[in-house]
Amino acid sequence: MNQDCIFCDIIHGDAPVWKIYEDEHFLAFLNINPATKGHSLVVPKEHYPELLDLPDHELKHTLKVVQDVADSVVEATDADGFNILQSNNPVAGQEIFHIHFHIIPRYHGDSVDIRWDAEELDENEAEDLLKEIKDCM
Amino acid sequence: MNQDCIFCDIIHGDAPVWKIYEDEHFLAFLNINPATKGHSLVVPKEHYPELLDLPDHELKHTLKVVQDVADSVVEATDADGFNILQSNNPVAGQEIFHIHFHIIPRYHGDSVDIRWDAEELDENEAEDLLKEIKDCM
Repeated sequence: MNQDCIFCDIIHGDAPVWKIYEDEHFLAFLNINPATKGHSLVVPKEHYPELLDLPDHELKHTLKVVQDVADSVVEATDADGFNILQSNNPVAGQEIFHIHFHIIPRYHGDSVDIRWDAEELDENEAEDLLKEIKDCM
Repeated sequence: MNQDCIFCDIIHGDAPVWKIYEDEHFLAFLNINPATKGHSLVVPKEHYPELLDLPDHELKHTLKVVQDVADSVVEATDADGFNILQSNNPVAGQEIFHIHFHIIPRYHGDSVDIRWDAEELDENEAEDLLKEIKDCM
């Protein structure tokens, strides 16, 4: 448990929450500042700041919990689709430093905007980059 | 294998790819239209359209592959952070209907923009929504 973490407070019953699902290792709850109706968060109960910190025994179960919660949220809200978003570091939009998976139901005309300027990958740059990435694997 | 799926073509060696990682069940490769340097995709080799279609034996391993690839990509690119994004249905931005996990390295000043108009959750609406979601669990 991290003393300065709102998600740790929620997990330990020290902050209010609209709880969707709970098991020994995970908690899922409604985001109190939803992007869309049904915007939910899935968090491990242990405090890990970000994805690279998540150990194998958590990794193994996380996506199943995310899938189960997403399935129910989409059914309950009758959403047209959904995004799973997980952000690491403030530059990526992370605001709470306890790893969390956003389940964002999507509706035609909603306010969610996910965009970037895509460029075509340069062949020589790609070869160099690929080599560097593989050297790090 | 799906006949009209570019990712199935890549997986079966019928389309070019800059392959980062491959095992019996997963493939990771550079996105040919990257949002940022190192933008990569992780896909299961089996053709599943979206997250709700992914069976348990794939769910169990997917996030570990995503973590491993993200770790190497971030190290190789010296990125400041990263997003994991997974989109279901065109309304959520899905363009290829073979489930894929985006690993998007983030850099200060990059072109990636992920935003929404967040509203505060209304207490009565939250209670009703929570009940509906739980009924679907």
